[in-house]
Amino acid sequence: MGETRRIAVLGSTGSIGRQALEVIAAFPDRFQVVALACHRSADQVVAQSRRFRPGLVAVVDPAAAERAAEELNGTGVDVASGPEGLLRCAALAEADVVLAAMTGIAGLPAVWEAVRAGKTVALANKEPLVVAGHLIMPEAKRAGARLVPVDSEHSAIFQLLLGQDRAAVTRVVLTASGGAFRELPAEALETVTPAQALAHPTWQMGPKVTVDSATLMNKGLEIIEAHWLFGLRPDQIEVILHPESIVHSLVEFGDGSVLAQLANPDMRLPIQFALSYPERLPRPEPPVDLARLGALNFAPLSATRWPCVRLAREALAAGGTAPAVLNAADEVAVSWFLEGRIRFTEIPGIIERALARHAARPADSIEALLAVDAEVRESLSREGAQCIQR
Amino acid sequence: MGETRRIAVLGSTGSIGRQALEVIAAFPDRFQVVALACHRSADQVVAQSRRFRPGLVAVVDPAAAERAAEELNGTGVDVASGPEGLLRCAALAEADVVLAAMTGIAGLPAVWEAVRAGKTVALANKEPLVVAGHLIMPEAKRAGARLVPVDSEHSAIFQLLLGQDRAAVTRVVLTASGGAFRELPAEALETVTPAQALAHPTWQMGPKVTVDSATLMNKGLEIIEAHWLFGLRPDQIEVILHPESIVHSLVEFGDGSVLAQLANPDMRLPIQFALSYPERLPRPEPPVDLARLGALNFAPLSATRWPCVRLAREALAAGGTAPAVLNAADEVAVSWFLEGRIRFTEIPGIIERALARHAARPADSIEALLAVDAEVRESLSREGAQCIQR
Repeated sequence: MGETRRIAVLGSTGSIGRQALEVIAAFPDRFQVVALACHRSADQVVAQSRRFRPGLVAVVDPAAAERAAEELNGTGVDVASGPEGLLRCAALAEADVVLAAMTGIAGLPAVWEAVRAGKTVALANKEPLVVAGHLIMPEAKRAGARLVPVDSEHSAIFQLLLGQDRAAVTRVVLTASGGAFRELPAEALETVTPAQALAHPTWQMGPKVTVDSATLMNKGLEIIEAHWLFGLRPDQIEVILHPESIVHSLVEFGDGSVLAQLANPDMRLPIQFALSYPERLPRPEPPVDLARLGALNFAPLSATRWPCVRLAREALAAGGTAPAVLNAADEVAVSWFLEGRIRFTEIPGIIERALARHAARPADSIEALLAVDAEVRESLSREGAQCIQR
Repeated sequence: MGETRRIAVLGSTGSIGRQALEVIAAFPDRFQVVALACHRSADQVVAQSRRFRPGLVAVVDPAAAERAAEELNGTGVDVASGPEGLLRCAALAEADVVLAAMTGIAGLPAVWEAVRAGKTVALANKEPLVVAGHLIMPEAKRAGARLVPVDSEHSAIFQLLLGQDRAAVTRVVLTASGGAFRELPAEALETVTPAQALAHPTWQMGPKVTVDSATLMNKGLEIIEAHWLFGLRPDQIEVILHPESIVHSLVEFGDGSVLAQLANPDMRLPIQFALSYPERLPRPEPPVDLARLGALNFAPLSATRWPCVRLAREALAAGGTAPAVLNAADEVAVSWFLEGRIRFTEIPGIIERALARHAARPADSIEALLAVDAEVRESLSREGAQCIQR
């Protein structure tokens, strides 16, 4: 058996963070939690700390941090507050692996910090790479950091590329379940509710990524993520509809061989793989049973029905600050939809207008990208009255 | 680009041999034919020799060898005759890779010779490993030989295991098209003709392996082959029906991840991979188009309908000389069926009776195994009158 991995779990109270702690708890000899970080769920992070005994806990929200500090007083757990606390966790000397499981662009500074510190970063939080891949990838190389994707599609590709002739890769194919509304006629999308959007047919995930799955923006962000992670041209990254969510992605080689990774849709598997890589540890769930499934179905993705995939490809092609605009506008639009302020079908239009208003420019620092993010949010919030028709 | 591989093609006039020469011809800078060997197709091997200019040609049949020698007189090609000629090709100092594409147990001495000579053996001829895996695998290790399977299922598994945590492999799943008669009611199998058995729905292959595909004995032999090639227990090797022959095999890991290799059913791909490995060279055919295919179908394999799979598992479990008996009886039964002497449905019974008559014993030499093979053939031919009911 291998050594014990010391893990910092950033975003420990979110969907991925909680599942990661389940995985970690199953292998007490192999994994040790050295840090936990969350945004504001004080009670939950306190309970997690009592169970996993990390040396450091960070709570970004100062009031929540204060509450957590009181609760953990005398336990020997150091409680840090504010964004700086999160950054301390990301660069913690004691951590071998930093699991980045925050939501949205908010995770960018911590991912950047972990990369600069040369950590193995188990990356569940895709937005940092979407927005700042052109800075993160060279910095990872310089610092000796290793990015191991947790997104099931990218985990699939990462697993499939191990030991292969990388120069012979011609294409990767990301599978898309089609999200909550894959069966719905296009006109019915007008009136879908947040609750309907949050009912994903195959995956249990957080609200942002579940709505992104329903608009297919999640797949758009994944195209950008795959571009950076695997050094592929945009035209080498395809998307195919696969309603069962059993095949997570495929890699095509120039000799005509196609490798695919299959698994039941359960995020604990790619989380565990990212934490245990290059080793694989056992999991108790039965494997995929193809004879019982009977068939795996595939269909082309309709570009007109899902404009967000096109928008993501356009932002990737424009480069520089454009993906930051795409991402900020999407985060805002999704939050407005979840608050009941806009219709589901208005999400792509908000993003498209934000991209149209913005002249993409090179961005050579994380700060510049965060400034663009803030600028887009402010501009959207000012123009909110016009955007929001109800 | 890499170096030029010097290749000896054993069985060059058979289905795999001819397709291998097509592959080789496509990469004149990467592959060079240094030897050709065939059983008795003098005209064909002469034409191949004029095209590929090997230093050595072996023709096993002495009369055919004489004809080939006359034709190639003055071309600088050395023509060898008899089984010794085949062995010279197998151990040729100039060869980097020996493609073993003979049919049946007849290939065993040459495969053994190539392994002893420490060659990279591209193994299309599965029977040597089925019969003598317990001798070939340790000898390959001792001699530094490398076995790269050409069988599409084993090529798939070989490709999928590259770079993976081998200790975490829990199971492999071989796919079976179901052969020519997969759609036929069991009672209709009684009256099928050799011509019908030779019409494989998805693969173009030689007659022996095509009939073995129709009885599913091919899958039984592949189970034994996988056992030796990948060091797996028999219970770790499963078979599943997959009529499209697109997924060639799957590898399951203890963490629940399943890797699959897909390709259009075209033997030139696994042949090329075995010749170019670890590099992958381009092929002109379009890759698998899952969106156009729409679905990949899977079903459990019926054990009662296909007794040959059970017989192969029983021979593997008995070990020693039992797989040699299984293989000899199958070769005899298939030839009898192709000659119209027995019904298709009599094939398993002949093999089962041969196994029942034989007390499996350890076999510690190739000679001992060949003796058992000869013994079974002789015994079957003596008892032919009883076996053959028409």
